[in-house]
Amino acid sequence: MFETDSSISRLTVDLGAVQRNYKRVAAELDPGVECAAVVKADAYGTGAVRVAPALAQVGARSFFVAQVEEGIELRPLLSEAQIFVLNGLQTGLEADCEAHRLTPVLNSLGEIQLWTAHARGRGHPLPAAVHLDTGMNRLGLPASEVATLVAEPERLQGLAPLLLVSHLACAEQTDHEANPRQLQLFRKWLRQLPGAPASFANSSGVFLGTDYHFDMVRPGAALYGVNPLQNHLNQMTQVILLEAKILQVRNVDRGTTVGYGATHRIEHAGGRLATVAIGYSGGYLRSASGRGLAYLGDQLVKVVGRVSMDLITIDVSGISPEKTRPGAWVELIGPHLDVDTVAEQAGTIGYEVLTSLGGHHRRRYRAPS
Amino acid sequence: MFETDSSISRLTVDLGAVQRNYKRVAAELDPGVECAAVVKADAYGTGAVRVAPALAQVGARSFFVAQVEEGIELRPLLSEAQIFVLNGLQTGLEADCEAHRLTPVLNSLGEIQLWTAHARGRGHPLPAAVHLDTGMNRLGLPASEVATLVAEPERLQGLAPLLLVSHLACAEQTDHEANPRQLQLFRKWLRQLPGAPASFANSSGVFLGTDYHFDMVRPGAALYGVNPLQNHLNQMTQVILLEAKILQVRNVDRGTTVGYGATHRIEHAGGRLATVAIGYSGGYLRSASGRGLAYLGDQLVKVVGRVSMDLITIDVSGISPEKTRPGAWVELIGPHLDVDTVAEQAGTIGYEVLTSLGGHHRRRYRAPS
Repeated sequence: MFETDSSISRLTVDLGAVQRNYKRVAAELDPGVECAAVVKADAYGTGAVRVAPALAQVGARSFFVAQVEEGIELRPLLSEAQIFVLNGLQTGLEADCEAHRLTPVLNSLGEIQLWTAHARGRGHPLPAAVHLDTGMNRLGLPASEVATLVAEPERLQGLAPLLLVSHLACAEQTDHEANPRQLQLFRKWLRQLPGAPASFANSSGVFLGTDYHFDMVRPGAALYGVNPLQNHLNQMTQVILLEAKILQVRNVDRGTTVGYGATHRIEHAGGRLATVAIGYSGGYLRSASGRGLAYLGDQLVKVVGRVSMDLITIDVSGISPEKTRPGAWVELIGPHLDVDTVAEQAGTIGYEVLTSLGGHHRRRYRAPS
Repeated sequence: MFETDSSISRLTVDLGAVQRNYKRVAAELDPGVECAAVVKADAYGTGAVRVAPALAQVGARSFFVAQVEEGIELRPLLSEAQIFVLNGLQTGLEADCEAHRLTPVLNSLGEIQLWTAHARGRGHPLPAAVHLDTGMNRLGLPASEVATLVAEPERLQGLAPLLLVSHLACAEQTDHEANPRQLQLFRKWLRQLPGAPASFANSSGVFLGTDYHFDMVRPGAALYGVNPLQNHLNQMTQVILLEAKILQVRNVDRGTTVGYGATHRIEHAGGRLATVAIGYSGGYLRSASGRGLAYLGDQLVKVVGRVSMDLITIDVSGISPEKTRPGAWVELIGPHLDVDTVAEQAGTIGYEVLTSLGGHHRRRYRAPS
């Protein structure tokens, strides 16, 4: 997208806030426990090529992406780091992984075999993580395959350095019974398998306590300002500011309907509406129709009617005309409206709000101070 | 995103299908009525730089984008076409619009003044559309400003060629009372204003009948396979095929829970789950959690548990193992699952499914035959 002086939507990413969040998470850890960083999905929509180096600057040495392509893109920016690929090793990608020094997170005996065979062919060990599924039932070795590995530990020969990982399914609910159950199983398997460092906790898992930390934690969402814990005060700093410009303001009579489907009716006299240059194609989720909030300066306003592809309408009745001129910026996500609040309005989670932002807006990166 | 031979998700766009849809819409029109094409939001997620030239090839001469930046990107590919900018004219963009021969859709008296002043300064007329708001209450001149324009038609001096446009709010509901009400008002204003060609109908509006066509229609969604009419058989051809690979398959016991929040429980013995390489960061909306459908070949399967950022899980119990090997492609949107069906599973509309696809997947364009 071309940049002009007159962009009508913009996304500001505060790299200093990302760094502060990393340090805040790391402060939970005992000495010697490593704090990695999850930067998959373009660093949760914030821009991995800018965010990952900023995290390296404050001490992150290990990074997690989902796909090999993401790892290839980041390698030149993170020359010293270990880059893990969560989606594992697909047949045919062995050479790419090795060439770009990517560490696959092996999710099955089949993937272990693929990577150890490649290591044998090359005549030297290759780094790997092995993912043990303790109850997520999504990726990772199921119990039956872990049992095989316990009985035949020679299957891991050629994998060095090796990290054993698992993933929590319900960590954002601190009292969920699945947490201690997964922990117990992970510990049991670690005792049975050859000694290797281990990693278990995502952002939420970090705040379940040091029992969950093992040798490395892997925060993602918390780095980008998402609250890691339900029903607890958010200790993270907001990272993004999403704004769009008012394009037009109109006075509307009582009884006027707004937008597609005419779903919203103005019930008061003297109404004023402002049309703002953002819609679901720019990541303002359509499920926020009739429920979203926005800020004009420090003044709260409501999104009325349906979210359109490129536009929303906000009710600015009673707000002074100089604050609502065409060209004025409206805050959609930011200091007044954190990602979790915006997600709640749209019936989803902060993660999806972030990854939906897209490449549409003018981007500005605030450098760490 | 780098391309490898082993991409794990891919989006195929059938340019021939886009062309057929254009011709299907154009077949509704009387001779002499122009069929324009709406290609905003990256041609509804399908890729404007490929789709717009394909539409020009079958006769489209006028294109609509939302933002000036989109028009600038398309201009070199559409040297002869008229490109309209729906979001209007922001102060400071006059020179950009002129330099790239973009036609702003002027949404207020203020924008008309801005563009006519620029035309006077340049000493020659400039092309424009003027948007009259007949009841959408989003963009366009409200009734009070139309009245001013009727009283002072000299305000349009310097705008040539001129197109008068309006936009329907409820056109996909063929029997909605807003349709004839908006039509009547548009006709009244056209009689009162200086003679100029007019455009009213979006995709759905085209199928409301020739009364709604005027001189130019502006289909968007229908070109990309979205059904323009609620509760009617879809006459459009599907344009996109979205697929992702199976990463892993596991046997699961009765009582096993799946994914984040452990929201899905396997209730039968002999269960098998496949984990597929797509999630909400790739545009598979999280609101389809526990409701989505997918196809393995011609076999329908269900998405179970929550949609994750990069992964979904499908229930493949009872499907032959050779169809569910890691590496097998799963259809998420395509011939078996049209965009409207997928949207319904996610509680939204086809438009949002399309614009959410993102730049994440390997893209393939099928050339027109």
